[in-house]
Amino acid sequence: MAPNLDPYFKQVDKLSESFIDRLRKAVAIPSVSADDARRQDVVKMSEFLVSELQSLGAHVESRPLGLQPGKKDLHLPPVIVARHGSDPSKRTILVYGHYDVQPALKEDGWATEPFTLSIDDKGRMYGRGSTDDKGPVLGWLNAIHAHREAGIPLPVNLLMCFEGMEEYGSEGLDAFIEKEAAKGGFFANADAVCISDNYWLGTQKPCLTYGLRGCNYYTIAIHGPGQDLHSGLFGGATQEPMTDLTRVMARLVDTAGQIQIPGIKEMVAPLTEEEKGIYGKIEYSMANLHESLGSETGIFADKENTLMARWRYPSLSIHGVEGAFSAPGAKTVIPAKVIGKFSIRTVPDMESEKVDRCVFEYVKAEFAKLKSKNTLDVQLMHAGNWWVASPKHWNYTAAGRAVERVYGVQPDLTREGGSIPVTLTFEKATGKNVLLLPLGTSTDAAHSINEKFDRRNYIEGTKLLGSYLHYVAEEEMG
Amino acid sequence: MAPNLDPYFKQVDKLSESFIDRLRKAVAIPSVSADDARRQDVVKMSEFLVSELQSLGAHVESRPLGLQPGKKDLHLPPVIVARHGSDPSKRTILVYGHYDVQPALKEDGWATEPFTLSIDDKGRMYGRGSTDDKGPVLGWLNAIHAHREAGIPLPVNLLMCFEGMEEYGSEGLDAFIEKEAAKGGFFANADAVCISDNYWLGTQKPCLTYGLRGCNYYTIAIHGPGQDLHSGLFGGATQEPMTDLTRVMARLVDTAGQIQIPGIKEMVAPLTEEEKGIYGKIEYSMANLHESLGSETGIFADKENTLMARWRYPSLSIHGVEGAFSAPGAKTVIPAKVIGKFSIRTVPDMESEKVDRCVFEYVKAEFAKLKSKNTLDVQLMHAGNWWVASPKHWNYTAAGRAVERVYGVQPDLTREGGSIPVTLTFEKATGKNVLLLPLGTSTDAAHSINEKFDRRNYIEGTKLLGSYLHYVAEEEMG
Ligand SMILES: [Zn+2]
Ligand SMILES: [Zn+2]
Ligand SMILES: [Zn+2]
Ligand SMILES: [Zn+2]
Repeated sequence: MAPNLDPYFKQVDKLSESFIDRLRKAVAIPSVSADDARRQDVVKMSEFLVSELQSLGAHVESRPLGLQPGKKDLHLPPVIVARHGSDPSKRTILVYGHYDVQPALKEDGWATEPFTLSIDDKGRMYGRGSTDDKGPVLGWLNAIHAHREAGIPLPVNLLMCFEGMEEYGSEGLDAFIEKEAAKGGFFANADAVCISDNYWLGTQKPCLTYGLRGCNYYTIAIHGPGQDLHSGLFGGATQEPMTDLTRVMARLVDTAGQIQIPGIKEMVAPLTEEEKGIYGKIEYSMANLHESLGSETGIFADKENTLMARWRYPSLSIHGVEGAFSAPGAKTVIPAKVIGKFSIRTVPDMESEKVDRCVFEYVKAEFAKLKSKNTLDVQLMHAGNWWVASPKHWNYTAAGRAVERVYGVQPDLTREGGSIPVTLTFEKATGKNVLLLPLGTSTDAAHSINEKFDRRNYIEGTKLLGSYLHYVAEEEMG
Repeated sequence: MAPNLDPYFKQVDKLSESFIDRLRKAVAIPSVSADDARRQDVVKMSEFLVSELQSLGAHVESRPLGLQPGKKDLHLPPVIVARHGSDPSKRTILVYGHYDVQPALKEDGWATEPFTLSIDDKGRMYGRGSTDDKGPVLGWLNAIHAHREAGIPLPVNLLMCFEGMEEYGSEGLDAFIEKEAAKGGFFANADAVCISDNYWLGTQKPCLTYGLRGCNYYTIAIHGPGQDLHSGLFGGATQEPMTDLTRVMARLVDTAGQIQIPGIKEMVAPLTEEEKGIYGKIEYSMANLHESLGSETGIFADKENTLMARWRYPSLSIHGVEGAFSAPGAKTVIPAKVIGKFSIRTVPDMESEKVDRCVFEYVKAEFAKLKSKNTLDVQLMHAGNWWVASPKHWNYTAAGRAVERVYGVQPDLTREGGSIPVTLTFEKATGKNVLLLPLGTSTDAAHSINEKFDRRNYIEGTKLLGSYLHYVAEEEMG
């Protein structure tokens, strides 16, 4: 039975200015986790959340994570955990977000002060953290707020987990989640997880995200001479590590994106007829791609292959070289040791260790062909697994109904090319279905200058999060 | 008739402590030309030279070079020109050196204070500029000093040109030299030129240097997307400039140093039987090479091929990439624009413009093979020509006799792989033979930490410079 959401929606509209004011206060706290000097502001932001959640009647705890590894006397910001309701007859939904933000300086090219929420006449609310991820985090608070004001009880028990180091590696979070998801932990009763920290594929149509690619990041270090040499003095007489590295890296991938390492493609789950049908229906166009790229240098001419390349096939990117000359100008150096960096985006059914073995074997074989006296060392720097959830789970069908109710359209079911490691952590730790439910759009410029969150996406998004909780409460176990 | 040099030599030995004191004073002035904040010290160093030269009875002028291009209100250090003697019956020798030095900080790893001359028990005099190029510059002053004290007239008219921007591109010097070498200029009467600003091939045997390779420095810029992209989001869907650049650069040269660009090798002057005989006799060993490299990663197993590769064959080195990720750690970026940097060391009879044409054509052809939608731009960044002088000229035979007189051995006739652009400037401007007459050894660590100049090389070097002037005075026109 469809829940009666009208009173809730009305209350959200009525409170909308106070919700915007809540976001204004949050954006004004420059909680930049990458900047040690801003750590006190990250903590201040955690305190803001604690006090807001308390005033909304939630049980809140600020959990310390100890000292930041590698830093002297610098404490990690706390994880804020909160609970609203603990009725054993209700489902329990665990939501995650982060309250830290990317660095931002007006001088970087911002049109407005980055830590002042600036709303233009189109309702675009500019400010660092507006869409990533303060807006969505406050969306959960707003949903509680509107229920409370409207006198409607929350239809589920709501568990919240808001961290303050997401933009700087989520230091310490994995162990925390694992502990709290275990028996007796704060998250132990969660029936499903919802994360709102990604974006719609375009600007008009909401989506639910059920898959992410993984990422295996590699280094190829080649060294020869004991120290950097002058190319005038020794060029022609010594084998140069940079020559070797360039030749090895040139063998990894081609311009059309085809990975040249044997064994990689073979691990990819075959495309079924059913899956094939999905991509054509998704609201996306080549014009969208070209807008994101800022160029027409895509590999494929059609949307279907482009989406599959981004979501369900592996890719290999060469990121750069450490140890070589990288500044503007001219320097006639023969670098003694160079470290090439590349990563492979992984997809079902690639096994991380098997990918490593293919990479190591191939890189070593290609290097051996050079008959070089230099020394090669190829290493995995870090690996994050791919993730795919079942979009047929009640967590997804509920979210789909909520989207339809609020936006009047069925959401696209999408995957993403990048990784959101916490997704996998929650899935593993809780053993429950995880849903990515984005509020912002593809043009929000998270991590860039002029980050924004549309007023519509904030207010309708608050409605969406609340509706999701109602539909989740009504869904049959799937 | 061999000149009687004994009284001069005795005087040099007698004055040796005061010569070391002169070097101590010079090293104490941190005349770092690359550091704007040190410009006053560079000027102070020029004033030190002026006052020393005046006290030695030379006519001295401090010539301004105007403002430093690209800087606001920063004056270039002056060129110090000086003349000792103007007897039209004598030969006139023009000598060049530089009084600025490379940057140096104790924190870089110096064992002693870089701007304090520190002499160890083996007579190694440590200090920035000791060997490059304050020691050799003061060698000329010491030679005048000892002649004066011994009451021996200088056998030639001596013209001096000491600049203060050599380590930072000799800004403004070329035009200055051209003007002063022309009719009526300060250098107009020069019969030959001698530059002491390079090093022996090893540590025991002096050499005369008669050739240098040139250097053509190129950039390959490849750009695609409008801005850097996240490899998770777009990897596999877009053509990556770094992939293209890596593949193009991999086609430039192989591990054995063979340049893959058609037309380059063909321009190299063939090796004659006479020249072939030179290399075997030069005091150099593979152990010397391995010591310089700090490894055994040389291309050739024998000294002859190694020396030829360094001196008389072209080489190609890939220096690095601008615009890609180059820091430690992991970053999952698809760089939007990358600029590869490489240079070709040129030798007789390569023509610079013809080399450029071969490079441009080949790079464009290799890029075309990739069928990439990205954009390529290949450019020459700067070119400096190779230089070879005739070692049979009286300027060289005189220097050879001076070496034999001071060191008891015939010097090796060597070339160098690097470029000393001022050599070519002097040759072109004066139309006279130019000799490179090094005083320091291969282990002096110019441009590195713990730069040093051996006491023996300083004192015997002062004898050598003075003797050279005597033999030059006596040589028949060749
Ligand atoms: Zn985020
Ligand atoms: Zn973020
Ligand atoms: Zn020098
Ligand atoms: Zn130098």
